Amino acid sequence: MAKIYERIAVIGCGLIGSSVVRAAREAGAVGEIMVFDASDHVRQRVRDLGLADHVADTAADAVKGCDLVLFGTPVLAVGEAMNAAASALEPGATVTDVGSAKGVIAEALNGAAPKGVFVIPGHPIAGTEHSGPDAGLAEMFENRWVILTPNDDASPDYQAAVERLSQFWRALGAQVDTMDVKHHDLVLAVTSHLPHLIAYNIVGTAADLENVTQTEVMKYSAGGFRDFTRIAASDPTMWRDIFIANKDAVLEILGRFTEDLQALSRAIRWSEADKLHDIFTRTREIRRGIIALGQESPEPNFGRDRGKH
Amino acid sequence: MAKIYERIAVIGCGLIGSSVVRAAREAGAVGEIMVFDASDHVRQRVRDLGLADHVADTAADAVKGCDLVLFGTPVLAVGEAMNAAASALEPGATVTDVGSAKGVIAEALNGAAPKGVFVIPGHPIAGTEHSGPDAGLAEMFENRWVILTPNDDASPDYQAAVERLSQFWRALGAQVDTMDVKHHDLVLAVTSHLPHLIAYNIVGTAADLENVTQTEVMKYSAGGFRDFTRIAASDPTMWRDIFIANKDAVLEILGRFTEDLQALSRAIRWSEADKLHDIFTRTREIRRGIIALGQESPEPNFGRDRGKH
Repeated sequence: MAKIYERIAVIGCGLIGSSVVRAAREAGAVGEIMVFDASDHVRQRVRDLGLADHVADTAADAVKGCDLVLFGTPVLAVGEAMNAAASALEPGATVTDVGSAKGVIAEALNGAAPKGVFVIPGHPIAGTEHSGPDAGLAEMFENRWVILTPNDDASPDYQAAVERLSQFWRALGAQVDTMDVKHHDLVLAVTSHLPHLIAYNIVGTAADLENVTQTEVMKYSAGGFRDFTRIAASDPTMWRDIFIANKDAVLEILGRFTEDLQALSRAIRWSEADKLHDIFTRTREIRRGIIALGQESPEPNFGRDRGKH
Repeated sequence: MAKIYERIAVIGCGLIGSSVVRAAREAGAVGEIMVFDASDHVRQRVRDLGLADHVADTAADAVKGCDLVLFGTPVLAVGEAMNAAASALEPGATVTDVGSAKGVIAEALNGAAPKGVFVIPGHPIAGTEHSGPDAGLAEMFENRWVILTPNDDASPDYQAAVERLSQFWRALGAQVDTMDVKHHDLVLAVTSHLPHLIAYNIVGTAADLENVTQTEVMKYSAGGFRDFTRIAASDPTMWRDIFIANKDAVLEILGRFTEDLQALSRAIRWSEADKLHDIFTRTREIRRGIIALGQESPEPNFGRDRGKH
């Protein structure tokens, strides 16, 4: 495959950043790879793992001479990292990121970008519950969606930069969509942020019970709870930042969720059998829609899916 | 393996009932297998699949001469099925079930059981989101927990019946625990019923949004939502019955969940970064506890687990 970028900098090299590094290398999509991370420990691990061509000591050092700069830090750290890197950015370089809340990031990147630099925020919908550079995977983005949220710059140069970044992600195995920043943040509040919030919450609730032991919760978690613990094991710093950065959309969706939950609770209290059956039948249809879309295999997955009641 | 029961009847042959049939056959744990199901369609499928030695036309016919009778119907249908079968039960037979709420079932079975019949309610914590006799699996119970909720009959005959039923489940690959009925229903409200309620609810909430399309929800569901759709695809009749049968424990746990969610929501609204980080760090520890207990492998599962933010 032809190189898409000559030299990229990954600023923040955790689970996703290090997956980009691994995947870009494996795909032959880039020439040189520079890495910077604010953590001494992470920089050392990246060196030990031999992931990058060069591990820089500052963000500005890392981005020099790069035609792509990708921020992989927690969402609320992108602004500071960009400020540190901005003066060293080359004209014509593209700046992107991988954060799950795009409003705050688009503002920070656009606010700090020097003239001639193309800001194209991005979000690969991929990950695991693990964290750090050791947890990255070259195959992380295969058959995953990446959403880019370009600004409204209609110039041919900017459009070409968006197309080039799309090619880069496709080279890493992903499919690419573009979307308005605000809409992205609302969609992700539904498909990702609220599910994580709920999972964190239920695991916390279970931990606080006086008359059910932790061991019991763990032993019998195959009943459904186990899936929530996996989601609730995701990186705490990353999620703290996402909820704060996307609070408006998250609280809006959470309000609707709570309303619906009250209605469901009332139907249970009054043994409204038909209403419950209707609700549960409808949600089953949505699952079928996802399978029909090819997002998931309909077969049960033995190691993982057994144990749902 | 030596036979543990000479002749068993499975009354209600859906996902779990047909898995018991398949697993018992494969383990050589039983002589003859009788099946009854209230649905003509299910009886025909059981015949077509050749699962049983005999498919009876009534519950009473099925249980004649059986030393084990296992009810696999939805929770609220067990009482009626037991009433239909009771007069034909043999003295010395064991009556059990596989329902996820044990209070209602223990009452129904004990109320209808003739003298000399051993009632031992049971609950294999196993399943998939699929339903019906075609979805059953011989390996369904391997390394899964089965909780028996025996009554307080300390007689040697009853104790021997409990031990024999435990042997049966172990022959099918399961581990067996015993527990008080009320405690079972509380534990399962946490580890299974509330997770399902929440999953059903969030999938319903997502379906009702005006400004996010169903297609968007499905396409970007890898962010966490997809796990919920799998749980929310479980059998509607089964779950309607569980929530109604176990409403006291479910509403109690749901009350705590809602309280905690309000506190979490408030922490987001006021950007309480440290509080959020603490909560999310704590839930991660619980996941580690489950891995340490050997309930789950720490490795990411690629087809399934990628895509968590």
